[in-house]
Amino acid sequence: MERFVIIVAGGSGSRMGSKTPKQFLLVRGKPLLMWTFKRFYQFDPQIKIILALPQDKIGYWETLCRKYSFDIPHSIAVGGKTRFESVRNALEQIEADDNALVAVHDGVRPLVSEEVIKNCFLTASTKGAAIPVCPIVETIREVSKDLTSSRTVDRDEYRIVQTPQTFQLGLLRKAYAQPYNDSFTDDASVVEALGVDVFLLEGNRENIKVTTPVDLKIAKALLS
Amino acid sequence: MERFVIIVAGGSGSRMGSKTPKQFLLVRGKPLLMWTFKRFYQFDPQIKIILALPQDKIGYWETLCRKYSFDIPHSIAVGGKTRFESVRNALEQIEADDNALVAVHDGVRPLVSEEVIKNCFLTASTKGAAIPVCPIVETIREVSKDLTSSRTVDRDEYRIVQTPQTFQLGLLRKAYAQPYNDSFTDDASVVEALGVDVFLLEGNRENIKVTTPVDLKIAKALLS
Repeated sequence: MERFVIIVAGGSGSRMGSKTPKQFLLVRGKPLLMWTFKRFYQFDPQIKIILALPQDKIGYWETLCRKYSFDIPHSIAVGGKTRFESVRNALEQIEADDNALVAVHDGVRPLVSEEVIKNCFLTASTKGAAIPVCPIVETIREVSKDLTSSRTVDRDEYRIVQTPQTFQLGLLRKAYAQPYNDSFTDDASVVEALGVDVFLLEGNRENIKVTTPVDLKIAKALLS
Repeated sequence: MERFVIIVAGGSGSRMGSKTPKQFLLVRGKPLLMWTFKRFYQFDPQIKIILALPQDKIGYWETLCRKYSFDIPHSIAVGGKTRFESVRNALEQIEADDNALVAVHDGVRPLVSEEVIKNCFLTASTKGAAIPVCPIVETIREVSKDLTSSRTVDRDEYRIVQTPQTFQLGLLRKAYAQPYNDSFTDDASVVEALGVDVFLLEGNRENIKVTTPVDLKIAKALLS
């Protein structure tokens, strides 16, 4: 079974308060994004990696690859204005039959475990669509738009959604052939718009999305 | 204005996979709970601290205080079977008039900022009830009890709730005079059962609840 992963690295770094986009920030001596690559490569050195990167960051990435002698094979797809567009562009590069499996992963999640990657591919191969989720350990509240009213909700009825969100290629192609819609917040929501269910499996809690300086500190600690 | 904080440390350590309850685990050379104390003491050395601790952990805590020459003044209240009971017992020790302010804080949140503590007391003094909340940065889903169906919800309509949850003493006393109810997941929910609104203010994101080995690693990194 052919396996692909689309790594989406379109972030601008604005929330990080840094000029360097967050996916390129150094963590223990190398850019964050390279740590993310490593997780998939360690899981399966044969996996085909497609990196979706904004046009104006491609040269910089190539410079980084030379500088750090980065040798994990991958191809590059030009990112779009939205995550949806980036994934769609990357999908167009994939030449394989509909049974191939494609994971879509956030470039700034360098802490996904090999176990979770494995389970996502395994589950997607039988169920068509699989996403890793984690319980919410804090109390959560539903709030009104102006924050003046709120109520505690039962956290057991919610899950945090992570990536890699993993699909059969045929299904994902069909999903991304749909016109863009604001309700598409992740790949699962795009697939669900076809009326297809996604299967939830257990993620690993440390698989955080690195978007703020606090997250970066956490990532540094957990990648040690 | 007299200020109190009830630090609730009733955990058993079961999720931590450790025999030592999590509030006593060492972080950078001293027990987690002592870091938590330090945040409130640094905010206001005059604050009155009441530690709610299970009966069978009091001796151990006193030993730790001697061992680490821990000298932040505090009194101890015997914890109950539930968080509700622990807070109620601690409240009974407070002798002050109804305008005094009481924060209730999780012992395993050593990373609350002084800014957030200050804002909680300030807001509670005018609004009666104030709790710190943070936006949810990940996609979240509402799930059915058996996890077979789920749907993405708008994360902007939810907040993560932290502590210190802070109240005017009179209000909190009245709230804790109510009989226990399973819907009481935090102090805010107890106060709301009186029909009183709680005011939401911005928490600090690193103020995590340390409940798993991953959290402990994170706390170690952020307390550096």
